[in-house]
Amino acid sequence: MNVRYVLRQLGLLFIVLSAVLVAISGWAVIELFRGHGDERAPLVAFALAAGVVMVVGAGLWFLTRPTSHQLGRREALLLVALSWLVGALLAALPFYFWAHLDPSAGADHVFTSPIDCYFETMSGLTTTGATVVVGIDTLPRSILLWRAMTHWLGGLGIVVLFVAVLPSVGVGGKKLFRVEAPGPEPEGVTPHIRETARILWIIYLGLTVIETLALRLAGMGWFDAVCHTFATLATGGFSTRDASVGGFNSLAVDIIVIVFMILAGVNFGLYFQMIRGRFTSVWRDAELRAYLGILLLASAFVVVGIAGEPITLTTGETHAPSIGRAVQEGVFTTVSLQTTTGFCTADFDRWPFAVKALLVLLMFVGGSAGSTGGGIKVIRILIAFKVMVAELERAFRPNVVRPIKIGAGTVTPELRLGTVAFVLGHILLFGAGAGLLMLLEPEGVMTMTTAATASVATLCNIGPGLAKVGAVENYAWFTAPSKMVMCLLMVLGRLEVFAILVLFVPRFWRSG
Amino acid sequence: MNVRYVLRQLGLLFIVLSAVLVAISGWAVIELFRGHGDERAPLVAFALAAGVVMVVGAGLWFLTRPTSHQLGRREALLLVALSWLVGALLAALPFYFWAHLDPSAGADHVFTSPIDCYFETMSGLTTTGATVVVGIDTLPRSILLWRAMTHWLGGLGIVVLFVAVLPSVGVGGKKLFRVEAPGPEPEGVTPHIRETARILWIIYLGLTVIETLALRLAGMGWFDAVCHTFATLATGGFSTRDASVGGFNSLAVDIIVIVFMILAGVNFGLYFQMIRGRFTSVWRDAELRAYLGILLLASAFVVVGIAGEPITLTTGETHAPSIGRAVQEGVFTTVSLQTTTGFCTADFDRWPFAVKALLVLLMFVGGSAGSTGGGIKVIRILIAFKVMVAELERAFRPNVVRPIKIGAGTVTPELRLGTVAFVLGHILLFGAGAGLLMLLEPEGVMTMTTAATASVATLCNIGPGLAKVGAVENYAWFTAPSKMVMCLLMVLGRLEVFAILVLFVPRFWRSG
Repeated sequence: MNVRYVLRQLGLLFIVLSAVLVAISGWAVIELFRGHGDERAPLVAFALAAGVVMVVGAGLWFLTRPTSHQLGRREALLLVALSWLVGALLAALPFYFWAHLDPSAGADHVFTSPIDCYFETMSGLTTTGATVVVGIDTLPRSILLWRAMTHWLGGLGIVVLFVAVLPSVGVGGKKLFRVEAPGPEPEGVTPHIRETARILWIIYLGLTVIETLALRLAGMGWFDAVCHTFATLATGGFSTRDASVGGFNSLAVDIIVIVFMILAGVNFGLYFQMIRGRFTSVWRDAELRAYLGILLLASAFVVVGIAGEPITLTTGETHAPSIGRAVQEGVFTTVSLQTTTGFCTADFDRWPFAVKALLVLLMFVGGSAGSTGGGIKVIRILIAFKVMVAELERAFRPNVVRPIKIGAGTVTPELRLGTVAFVLGHILLFGAGAGLLMLLEPEGVMTMTTAATASVATLCNIGPGLAKVGAVENYAWFTAPSKMVMCLLMVLGRLEVFAILVLFVPRFWRSG
Repeated sequence: MNVRYVLRQLGLLFIVLSAVLVAISGWAVIELFRGHGDERAPLVAFALAAGVVMVVGAGLWFLTRPTSHQLGRREALLLVALSWLVGALLAALPFYFWAHLDPSAGADHVFTSPIDCYFETMSGLTTTGATVVVGIDTLPRSILLWRAMTHWLGGLGIVVLFVAVLPSVGVGGKKLFRVEAPGPEPEGVTPHIRETARILWIIYLGLTVIETLALRLAGMGWFDAVCHTFATLATGGFSTRDASVGGFNSLAVDIIVIVFMILAGVNFGLYFQMIRGRFTSVWRDAELRAYLGILLLASAFVVVGIAGEPITLTTGETHAPSIGRAVQEGVFTTVSLQTTTGFCTADFDRWPFAVKALLVLLMFVGGSAGSTGGGIKVIRILIAFKVMVAELERAFRPNVVRPIKIGAGTVTPELRLGTVAFVLGHILLFGAGAGLLMLLEPEGVMTMTTAATASVATLCNIGPGLAKVGAVENYAWFTAPSKMVMCLLMVLGRLEVFAILVLFVPRFWRSG
């Protein structure tokens, strides 16, 4: 284990983070000149945070001499874990500084507690979107922008990690990609991490520009358009309004957000392939087909399930039963929850049990591998399903080993076990999370529904759940220990469990 | 697939069942002579049922010519599935006939509905012990004996199946046994099914005699002693009293039942080995050690968790906090739930959440493989745990394949996948069961806790759960569709999923 190398890379990352904080400070200055007096404290907070992060980053960079060491598996995993765990600590500084610098802030300021700051930032960087903020509408715009920015950075980080970095060093994801894009040629992901990362970054930026323009054309202001674009492409879910996307009450906005949530839940490796002109292999991609198929079927089920009922929006407004409204809210909610974005337009907590049960199932499924979406991932669900059926057959034909195909690729025995173990591990973590939340909250406050959906909503990086963490609720009311548990769930889910849990395996730290 | 052969064996089984029903009729006659007038209707019911079952059994036997065909894997699985599914139908006849023959019975008779009769019988034969009877104390003694007998028959059937029959034909269990008792010699299970079955039957009968005598010495009447012995050794849980074992309010009874519940949860293959004098390999058995270790640790945790609280018994009596009482009730409940027996002495639904959470976890763990206990089984939990840790290591060392040892045996790759898939399948079935129960019951009646614990209590063949299926509750209030779902869960759990689910795999029915 070359810890020095890891710390040096981490330093570089923090220097970049510091630069982003400087940019946000610049934004606060602009807002200040426009006459938003409440930007004064945030401006100082961002500048101060930028300084601290720069000192930490530069310190790590200069105190570690360069080594010729290549990025190995264990170094990559440690770097990833530290990026999110320590990164969230540093990225939470603006919130904390703001709360303690704001002359008008009392003890009830939303970011007084360091735990709340960490929770909000972890929720942002893991693209979860669970918020402790009550009164989002009243936050200074630079703070809103920073919340959205943590999503965007986290989403970009995840795509680069899971499509470029980790497969190149042979961690987890690689085998999944082999399944997706098999064939004689090396697939979409080039062996050169830098080059791949550069192209992914351009794709991500391109989608950002397009969605921002589309939302602006649909009538959103530039600021809201940028913030919601950041949150959409990262499948995050932080909004600039308490009523989330529902606050804009616009069919055009809903449609644009639906389209880009779907796009964000697609494997970014496929965009890579499209750039190379390989449209056939994209079209034939088994995961893409399953992903779109599930979205379509589930949306239809949800729409039918709510068509006969009045629909209450996140704004509190209630609409009489209508097909149009059911389609709009049903499709938006289904796409938002399966892609693990977590934007809300309707209060789906009031929907029939069968619909809610399906929505919770979709939360577990999540987006595609190599997307910004969380959850178990469609490809794993596909593989696990086929493995389970094959295991059933083994009960009466133990000697027949039938190959399992995904698209044109065959699932190796290692991948069979790895996938089923992953799904089981995910479910066990969900159970452990729900149980811990029940234990940590005072009896009487928690229900099983709240605990279970808070667990899945954080582990699968969605944001809203049901009951007391429903569409029109928030996470502010949890006790500090519960918030720490959910921070852990968010980072476990985002980094696909292993990057964090391996840190607790003693062999991970031994040389050799 | 040799369906004719399967039907012939099934016929034989039903002829035996008919003989047992004749014996119960004989018991009803004795009770009648003793002056229990309420045995008249049951007597007719048992005689009638015996006749019907004999006609069905003899019909199957004589209408199918003997074939030279050996019992193959698929035939064994089909036979097992039909034994429980159709067997429960026939074994339910006495309840149904009784309800419709009893002159004093109105429409509110406990067994008026055929679904209720089927549920009670399936609960008996799968050694679950979930009951739809309210007012067990008032049932005729022959009916009580028949309920206990369904447990005993079901428990014997399971032991013979999983220790003698299925491993011999190469289904599922075999690989687990290879792990348990490895070595150069063929282990406890001889290749001759008949001989093995004969020895198992003697062991089972021997334990029955010993426990009956012990309970009698502890002050129980002969009748109650026999009924509770049947329910203990099968890890069933039907009692002759509404307050379950708590109704006897005897420390001696509790201790005896605890000991025999533990014995019933041990792999019967180990008793086989003890008879052969192989005490060392029994003592070194990894599953046995883990099983006893979990029971010990969990009991300690439960006792500590309830020591400071008043304890309410199933009789309604409440005791002030005391160490002695906490030990008695804590150990009894822990052993009863982990061995999946489901006898109750205390109303554990009132215990602290952490204790209840642990108890529910133990329900999933269950007894040992090859025991009468249900659940996932200790050996699978052991293997799955080691596999999950090994998979974690593969995240940073994908090329290292570390052997997984259980005792002196090595877990093969097939067994790794099979075990993890089994655990996942079990959890998914639990989730599906809970979801279906939520859907099927009218909104407002069900809580998540009731649905979840009813699902695990039936799938893992325990009996009582929490909330509305708690220690002092019953299953009478469920709607018929819910009861059907739980019948399916009971048989799925009892036959370890595969025997039932394979029936839905089209390839199962194809020749070759």
